Amino acid sequence: MQRNRFLGDLLSQLFDRSSTVRGKDDQRDIYMLCDALMSAEGEVSGLRLASSILARYADLNEDEKLAFFQYLNSELDVDAAHIAKVATDYAETKSPAVFIELCKAAEPKRQELLRRLNQPFGATHLLVEMRVDLLKLLKAHPELARTDIDFVHLLRSWFNRGFLVLKQINWDTPARILDKIVAYEAVHQIDDWDDLRRRLYPPDRRCFAFFHPSMPEEPLIFVEVALTADIPGSIDALLSDNRTPLEEDQAKVAVFYSISNCQKGLTGISFGNLLIKQVVAELSLSCPNIDTFVTLSPIPLMTRWLKAQEDDELVPAANSILEGSASSETMRAMAARYLLTGKRGDGLPYDPVARFHLGNGAEIHEVHAGADSSENGHKQSRGAMVNYLYNVDHTEKNHENFALRSTVKASRTVQTLSTAKLEAKTKEPAS
Amino acid sequence: MQRNRFLGDLLSQLFDRSSTVRGKDDQRDIYMLCDALMSAEGEVSGLRLASSILARYADLNEDEKLAFFQYLNSELDVDAAHIAKVATDYAETKSPAVFIELCKAAEPKRQELLRRLNQPFGATHLLVEMRVDLLKLLKAHPELARTDIDFVHLLRSWFNRGFLVLKQINWDTPARILDKIVAYEAVHQIDDWDDLRRRLYPPDRRCFAFFHPSMPEEPLIFVEVALTADIPGSIDALLSDNRTPLEEDQAKVAVFYSISNCQKGLTGISFGNLLIKQVVAELSLSCPNIDTFVTLSPIPLMTRWLKAQEDDELVPAANSILEGSASSETMRAMAARYLLTGKRGDGLPYDPVARFHLGNGAEIHEVHAGADSSENGHKQSRGAMVNYLYNVDHTEKNHENFALRSTVKASRTVQTLSTAKLEAKTKEPAS
Amino acid sequence: MQRNRFLGDLLSQLFDRSSTVRGKDDQRDIYMLCDALMSAEGEVSGLRLASSILARYADLNEDEKLAFFQYLNSELDVDAAHIAKVATDYAETKSPAVFIELCKAAEPKRQELLRRLNQPFGATHLLVEMRVDLLKLLKAHPELARTDIDFVHLLRSWFNRGFLVLKQINWDTPARILDKIVAYEAVHQIDDWDDLRRRLYPPDRRCFAFFHPSMPEEPLIFVEVALTADIPGSIDALLSDNRTPLEEDQAKVAVFYSISNCQKGLTGISFGNLLIKQVVAELSLSCPNIDTFVTLSPIPLMTRWLKAQEDDELVPAANSILEGSASSETMRAMAARYLLTGKRGDGLPYDPVARFHLGNGAEIHEVHAGADSSENGHKQSRGAMVNYLYNVDHTEKNHENFALRSTVKASRTVQTLSTAKLEAKTKEPAS
Amino acid sequence: MQRNRFLGDLLSQLFDRSSTVRGKDDQRDIYMLCDALMSAEGEVSGLRLASSILARYADLNEDEKLAFFQYLNSELDVDAAHIAKVATDYAETKSPAVFIELCKAAEPKRQELLRRLNQPFGATHLLVEMRVDLLKLLKAHPELARTDIDFVHLLRSWFNRGFLVLKQINWDTPARILDKIVAYEAVHQIDDWDDLRRRLYPPDRRCFAFFHPSMPEEPLIFVEVALTADIPGSIDALLSDNRTPLEEDQAKVAVFYSISNCQKGLTGISFGNLLIKQVVAELSLSCPNIDTFVTLSPIPLMTRWLKAQEDDELVPAANSILEGSASSETMRAMAARYLLTGKRGDGLPYDPVARFHLGNGAEIHEVHAGADSSENGHKQSRGAMVNYLYNVDHTEKNHENFALRSTVKASRTVQTLSTAKLEAKTKEPAS
Repeated sequence: MQRNRFLGDLLSQLFDRSSTVRGKDDQRDIYMLCDALMSAEGEVSGLRLASSILARYADLNEDEKLAFFQYLNSELDVDAAHIAKVATDYAETKSPAVFIELCKAAEPKRQELLRRLNQPFGATHLLVEMRVDLLKLLKAHPELARTDIDFVHLLRSWFNRGFLVLKQINWDTPARILDKIVAYEAVHQIDDWDDLRRRLYPPDRRCFAFFHPSMPEEPLIFVEVALTADIPGSIDALLSDNRTPLEEDQAKVAVFYSISNCQKGLTGISFGNLLIKQVVAELSLSCPNIDTFVTLSPIPLMTRWLKAQEDDELVPAANSILEGSASSETMRAMAARYLLTGKRGDGLPYDPVARFHLGNGAEIHEVHAGADSSENGHKQSRGAMVNYLYNVDHTEKNHENFALRSTVKASRTVQTLSTAKLEAKTKEPAS
Repeated sequence: MQRNRFLGDLLSQLFDRSSTVRGKDDQRDIYMLCDALMSAEGEVSGLRLASSILARYADLNEDEKLAFFQYLNSELDVDAAHIAKVATDYAETKSPAVFIELCKAAEPKRQELLRRLNQPFGATHLLVEMRVDLLKLLKAHPELARTDIDFVHLLRSWFNRGFLVLKQINWDTPARILDKIVAYEAVHQIDDWDDLRRRLYPPDRRCFAFFHPSMPEEPLIFVEVALTADIPGSIDALLSDNRTPLEEDQAKVAVFYSISNCQKGLTGISFGNLLIKQVVAELSLSCPNIDTFVTLSPIPLMTRWLKAQEDDELVPAANSILEGSASSETMRAMAARYLLTGKRGDGLPYDPVARFHLGNGAEIHEVHAGADSSENGHKQSRGAMVNYLYNVDHTEKNHENFALRSTVKASRTVQTLSTAKLEAKTKEPAS
Repeated sequence: MQRNRFLGDLLSQLFDRSSTVRGKDDQRDIYMLCDALMSAEGEVSGLRLASSILARYADLNEDEKLAFFQYLNSELDVDAAHIAKVATDYAETKSPAVFIELCKAAEPKRQELLRRLNQPFGATHLLVEMRVDLLKLLKAHPELARTDIDFVHLLRSWFNRGFLVLKQINWDTPARILDKIVAYEAVHQIDDWDDLRRRLYPPDRRCFAFFHPSMPEEPLIFVEVALTADIPGSIDALLSDNRTPLEEDQAKVAVFYSISNCQKGLTGISFGNLLIKQVVAELSLSCPNIDTFVTLSPIPLMTRWLKAQEDDELVPAANSILEGSASSETMRAMAARYLLTGKRGDGLPYDPVARFHLGNGAEIHEVHAGADSSENGHKQSRGAMVNYLYNVDHTEKNHENFALRSTVKASRTVQTLSTAKLEAKTKEPAS
Repeated sequence: MQRNRFLGDLLSQLFDRSSTVRGKDDQRDIYMLCDALMSAEGEVSGLRLASSILARYADLNEDEKLAFFQYLNSELDVDAAHIAKVATDYAETKSPAVFIELCKAAEPKRQELLRRLNQPFGATHLLVEMRVDLLKLLKAHPELARTDIDFVHLLRSWFNRGFLVLKQINWDTPARILDKIVAYEAVHQIDDWDDLRRRLYPPDRRCFAFFHPSMPEEPLIFVEVALTADIPGSIDALLSDNRTPLEEDQAKVAVFYSISNCQKGLTGISFGNLLIKQVVAELSLSCPNIDTFVTLSPIPLMTRWLKAQEDDELVPAANSILEGSASSETMRAMAARYLLTGKRGDGLPYDPVARFHLGNGAEIHEVHAGADSSENGHKQSRGAMVNYLYNVDHTEKNHENFALRSTVKASRTVQTLSTAKLEAKTKEPAS
């Protein structure tokens, strides 16, 4: 217990330090400062130079930012001819000295620049934000992908899983962090503070986030969890504002009903799989009665897929769903069929949320019609939702089958549904 | 203030997590486990596999460790011919896709293995320890330097300056950490708990250490500081056990009298320069009366240098010092001469402590005879010591001159001493 | 720094303990449990018995609560005849043994009962809540005042000033505590979370509360502070939702614009004076530019006083104010007159807020018309407000003059206003 | 978790505050300052006055301290005649107003003075120290017992059980606190830091202390615990410096082998009973395998009792023990007899440690010869020791029987031993 406290002190220090560095503006332009940071001057005055460059960058306009990234991309690139030469040499000699030379040659200078920029406190977040700018420019300037690769390489190293910290978000969390949870929720919007309280305060609700020690005020990803008696089939019931909370010890099921990535600048560096595993471990310990871990997930591209169907068997059912006249059974059958058979060119599921959970080793457990009456739910999937089941005894096997053979694991119920004959049965009219 | 507390909580979590992972032994051998960790299985079960490999490694004997490092060195090396080919391709196309391929090709597989090993809590320290084993083997197996380069590359990334945390060590520090300070003190041995109290408890003493969030119980480097009224000329007086402490507000000088690196596995990744800068900044804030920052440093290779002299002018003085018959002036003159003129083949100072402080931008301020009566002090330099002065207004300039031109900055006093005519004056006999 | 952390740990423990005690219901009724708690059984099983009694009390209905307080009041009263006898004895002997007997005799048994009830964690707050019940009954059952005296005696001891903890409330405060700030704000209602953010987040806003270690989730009293360039004359401007915040270092004045007591059960135990002094000390340290400490206070009973005027000189002005036709000057003159001359029977100011600040040693600095356009501001004082000035060099003297001689200290401006000839000047019509 | 952290922050504040108050010496003498503190001036300037008085007190010499206590004792005493009058009045009227008057009259003015002295941070500890001075004077000046009664009354209120905080002391505890543990250990002296490490660091050792939030650096009482496989019969084995620690999960028994009160100034305010109960609760939770809680206790007055025996049956055995020639059986029989039959005038056990544990509801479980070979162990009991057993199912009943009927509960073994026929058997000579 106290050990943690000492550790806690460690981090407080990080903050306190921030004040000491900053400031003292250097008159040189950003390129000269970058030169200085890479030179001998950078070794002894790295903190100051890095701070100045980051401050200078913050003041650049769009065009200047583009120019800066082009500088990184071209001026600070590798010398490929040189690499080829050294590599050939190494292939022959296997000499460590040549290997060092090869390592040096193969690493673009911009990597060292970015590493040196990451010295002042707060820099890590600024570099993550810098990548947001870069990603925006990528479409119009695809050659910048080279620079992006180096960003990803470094961010992956800095955000190594071993450095992530799982943290419960609850009603004792500082308002400053809660504000961010509201802002970053990407699946089921949080309307206001009362809505937030409904998701964090009741005894049958949980929320967990990953943080990184060097940007402690910024959640990286978070998941909202409902503890329930049974596997739920509707997000509307789950988020209703006049439901009666369950006593914690009566909960049997943990439902992951919303997972949100918070940092666009960390796109491509995945934390979701680890988050779910850690939260499963955490809840298994703290709520020993819980033995089932499922999601209640949106099916974001189902509507798009429905519209794209041309097969004679599917078109009537798809249309009845799109028009809102389909029965629940039809809805569920089509959702099942979509999840099991809708594929991308590479043979993986068409649905991104399905790819994420199946890739984590989960299996498709059940599909529901009329489960999400929100505008977004209607748009994405005409209100259909799906439970992915995380059965810890099977996740490794499932993951392997999915990763190597694109096999999608589903419950018998969902399998049966997905092959059901589709009748264009319509909803009973409200008589 | 509370912000720090939230941050502190972040880190407590790290610890708590440790318990959840560990355990569950896998029966496969370490190489099969490494294969698994690098494969699809590693993506979903990385924590478990990494833990198993680290546990397995801990049980290897010397020969098996060597075999393991040779496996890393050969099996998980780069394919140099392939690099050469891709580099040539890239030199022509500058295509981002080829660049990715080049990056991939140029990175030895062992880097990804080490990165994946660094997932469980506590892994970072184990990897630092693993490098200690590697360094031991390096002499007899110089080809392993290739693997060491990758260790250094990753450790440098993980121990990025921005992630280091400065922490004061004092009488409120947990005993567990203090035990380590005693163990790691490398300059002036700490005899027992009373000796430690004398260095941490009095109002005119300070100690600061760097820590890393992912190995919070292990100091990386620490410095012991005495606050004094004047620049001191003797470590004996400084560490005397019956001195009267100075009131904090009467201190004018901060004396860095001992700097110890704690982790052999981080050899080559330097924290000393940053530590001194941070401590100077910290003390400038907390003790505004202090305006002078100096060291009281050993001169570790002076005796060795004296013995190696062959110049007619120097030999008599050197001998008189080695025999213990030299006067103080002779001692000081020779110490000054050694520090200013004793050079390695590359033109840098022969003395490693001098290289460190001059490389940080400090200057040689004064030399003292009879300053360290300990056995070690006698052996290293016949009791001579030196003050390096950190003048924040000059450190950048000094560093640059030293780095680019090997210029050694010294006070007028020391310069004069270093050119003084050496008389073989001997100590006055105690009449 | 770490010292505090150890201290912090102390308190965490308090919480953890809570779980261990509770529970195990005892079948005896509340009176038998009280008997048991006062007996030998109470010495060894006090925690359990106290918990049971407090749980039992929570389930009592109104009538049963009354019966319980009457039991405390009569059954657990002193034996006055016995006191008289022992006191007479002591007057003669001055014997310590008799003194002990006298102390025992003079202390009602209910005091020991309440002390023993205050053993389980959380009990302190429950006893404060118990007094809320008692205060409600007091009007209809004035004899219970005897029991209330003992409550006050003990609460005063437990809430000794030395045990209070000043804590800044800001945007890093847990939501749980912020919810309470919203609920307890008694002067200028906090509408919603955005309104709260406006009071806590900007750099020119502060809020401080007192807490007690044994009820750490309950603020006792809090004050909201605005940092401003000049002494403000209107709460509307201060709380406006589109103002531009001041940079912290440009603030010259700290304005206490809202002070709220949170615990009805602590009525009569005053924390306001200490809170203001501590906050003045705290702000003097953290914002050295601030040299003026004032309130911007309501004048809650001014309207009532205006309505009660019968003096020929005052009635026209009073009426013009009540009707809303008075000029600013008339408003200010009447406000000044009210504050300086409106008295209770005991010679102290009629206005309770005036009594509070003058009793703390503040002085009346300025009065403002049209300063509070809220419904409540209209009702209380037709929008008039007042600045009380805390000049640390004068507070002791002012307090003494006020406490001993009921002297009201006011600025020359306010004094002049208060004697101004009252013309029934009306507001200029908006032409 | 975070809730505790907020709480922790509360207390850090206490410390920070300390700096703001202190200082500013007042020229008046201590009596005038006391007058001022009790007057109107005290209400507004209490912190400053209290600080000045406490600083003034610290500078008093022995005679001046005596004078100060005599002032408290006489000048600030009650007016007994007045009490008698008011009590008579109240006996007739039962009027709350008279009751208030009676309360006021019955409380010596020194109580209010002490309460007001307890305002600055750190004052509580100074008042505890003040009582140490008072206790020293009590023998020569028994009339001061009146003042001591008021100290006890207030300290009991301030150190209410509900305010105590249980804290584990281990190798993560700050050195500052550990220094105090070494200093206060009263049963088995801690020789040096290595000895301390042996008591805190191994997995089968525990130490717990009570702290009070207002003197957080001062333990009030602490207990050292050994976790063992069986009930131990010798302190020598328990504290041996080359024993092999037990794995935590193999421990079945928790042995309280040393309990030390730390604050002389809190004499008469007992924490030991609560400490043992809390530690039993804590260990039951954290080490579920442990089902037996015993002490290994000294028998401090056994030697004194042996020397005082005059009964023909006992004298030979007593002498053989005192001379060191008794067999183990004789030792144990006499120890059992002493513990069960040695009584004070009031019928309670002669042995103070026995009174403490039996009063807590423990029972005598076993006695051991040759269990403590230290000098002190020899002096107190010729090396005999005793296990008191805390059986949570019986402690209440045992306590009640002991408190009301002085019944001493002992195991059958010890009962049988205590009535064994005493033969003057001597130790077998080492052949």
